[in-house]
Amino acid sequence: MKEKFAIGIDVGGTNTKFGIVNRKGEILIQDRIKTNGTDSVDGFILQLSEKLQPMIDEYGGHENFAGIGMGAPNANYYKGTIEYAANLKWKGIIHMADLLEKKFHIPASLTNDANAAAVGELKYGVAKNMKDFITITLGTGVGSGIIIDGKIVLGHNGFAGELGHVIVRHNGRLHKGTGLHGALESYVSATGLRETAIEILQNNPEKPSLLRNYSIDDLTSETVYICATQGDPIANEIFEYTGQILGEALATFVLFSAPEAIVLFGGLTKAGDLLMKPTRQAMEDNLLQVFKNQVKILFSNLKEADAAILGASALVW
Amino acid sequence: MKEKFAIGIDVGGTNTKFGIVNRKGEILIQDRIKTNGTDSVDGFILQLSEKLQPMIDEYGGHENFAGIGMGAPNANYYKGTIEYAANLKWKGIIHMADLLEKKFHIPASLTNDANAAAVGELKYGVAKNMKDFITITLGTGVGSGIIIDGKIVLGHNGFAGELGHVIVRHNGRLHKGTGLHGALESYVSATGLRETAIEILQNNPEKPSLLRNYSIDDLTSETVYICATQGDPIANEIFEYTGQILGEALATFVLFSAPEAIVLFGGLTKAGDLLMKPTRQAMEDNLLQVFKNQVKILFSNLKEADAAILGASALVW
Repeated sequence: MKEKFAIGIDVGGTNTKFGIVNRKGEILIQDRIKTNGTDSVDGFILQLSEKLQPMIDEYGGHENFAGIGMGAPNANYYKGTIEYAANLKWKGIIHMADLLEKKFHIPASLTNDANAAAVGELKYGVAKNMKDFITITLGTGVGSGIIIDGKIVLGHNGFAGELGHVIVRHNGRLHKGTGLHGALESYVSATGLRETAIEILQNNPEKPSLLRNYSIDDLTSETVYICATQGDPIANEIFEYTGQILGEALATFVLFSAPEAIVLFGGLTKAGDLLMKPTRQAMEDNLLQVFKNQVKILFSNLKEADAAILGASALVW
Repeated sequence: MKEKFAIGIDVGGTNTKFGIVNRKGEILIQDRIKTNGTDSVDGFILQLSEKLQPMIDEYGGHENFAGIGMGAPNANYYKGTIEYAANLKWKGIIHMADLLEKKFHIPASLTNDANAAAVGELKYGVAKNMKDFITITLGTGVGSGIIIDGKIVLGHNGFAGELGHVIVRHNGRLHKGTGLHGALESYVSATGLRETAIEILQNNPEKPSLLRNYSIDDLTSETVYICATQGDPIANEIFEYTGQILGEALATFVLFSAPEAIVLFGGLTKAGDLLMKPTRQAMEDNLLQVFKNQVKILFSNLKEADAAILGASALVW
């Protein structure tokens, strides 16, 4: 085959990252745009093309490219669509693969953004030699990719592996995007952790906390992390609570596919042991005997942007 | 191949059913013994052999048999063992495949009893032409088998598909066998439904119910069913509650593998629409948009004993 390159595009709730990847899995050049920088998907394609087309030209034009792989929320591999994505401005069903092919004259494939990250881990990351693992992305939202027997699970309609929407607290927090109550994503995402912070601070007005020095807008997973490392008890309690819920959920996931490992990924993992310790403890506490002390919880060793771009590009080959 | 027959053995919490099956999937002869008729696994093998050996002899002796397939709780396909089964008298790790081979001089394979039932559905049941489905057994306990891409999911250690132990109510009912709180099995099994009945009756002493005519020992899923069909409001409430929890759990399972169908199986399914209606409603209420009105809930059309024996025997071929 004469095509030397693939394009990997990762559509996140905030940023869309993209790059040109060679057959060895090296990202040769990359850039990003705001995902919701315009209201329409046509505007998105235009902004993408303004940065991506010059890259394509630099690497010899569209004839040098085997394909475009895109990872996006609610993307469907079978149909090349993005459907009812809760965290994007584009509503309904978007025929993204068609739009990309028309714009760039390069064949395009789509998959769930979290599936793309899982494929990145399988090909280039900590799960390189594993046949059964689950990737959980803890970012603005919570995504997941499930690998069984070395293959990504797509399911009957192509939407398998939406573990962020598993109900972990009956009648729990409302998820505005989906209308569901008590979903994992409402607790263990950056957004969820922020909500936990506000709740705990408001429910404990008598307890002092460094977090009270921040305005409600500045109360983010980063500021909670900073306060926790300074020994703030409420900030630590927030991570304990988040890890407790995540660990319980991981115990449930283990019951499905009995993975060798669960790979955590995304912004919240920057908290390191603050998150990992309570997560591991809660998972073990809730595991069946036959799974105890067997399932590894790992942090991804790929740079976040890289894994998603690499995973998306791996769709092409 | 000259071997004409396989043996399928289904080890349940109460009965062990076994039969001789030909290559067409016809059960030629079958029988059963009590699973816990003796305290030791050696006693079990002895009682099994007293009934099974004459059958083997009738069909030409062990040389005519390609193998023994056994479905059992907590059975491990990779190792041929039964490990820490909560509902059996045999504790620790039982090397069942070895015991069977030694006794009958026929090669033996093991799998989880619910996995065996799923394989039975795949080969001979309502899921015959499906590539992605989940089987849930609602019996004394709750078992499950997950089929993805036409294959049973075994996982890294061989214990995948233990969905009865998924936590559906945080800090909920204690499961004595596992020590876990709020597991699905504690609500949607025959045992769980009975516990729901007792709870609702005790919490509503002012409400009349036909169920109050039964002693607590006679309060079973069958008696609740009888009273519900006679229009008893509390009996109906018990099925509503059970279906609500089951439906919520099914919505979670859909997020995992995006199955075409979920096949329900076992004693509780005899309640028909009393269970099916609230289950379907609760599942749909808790599904993400991309899954709504897509996933079938089906009752198995195989006789319970047959599916498990057939599924276990299918391990052999």
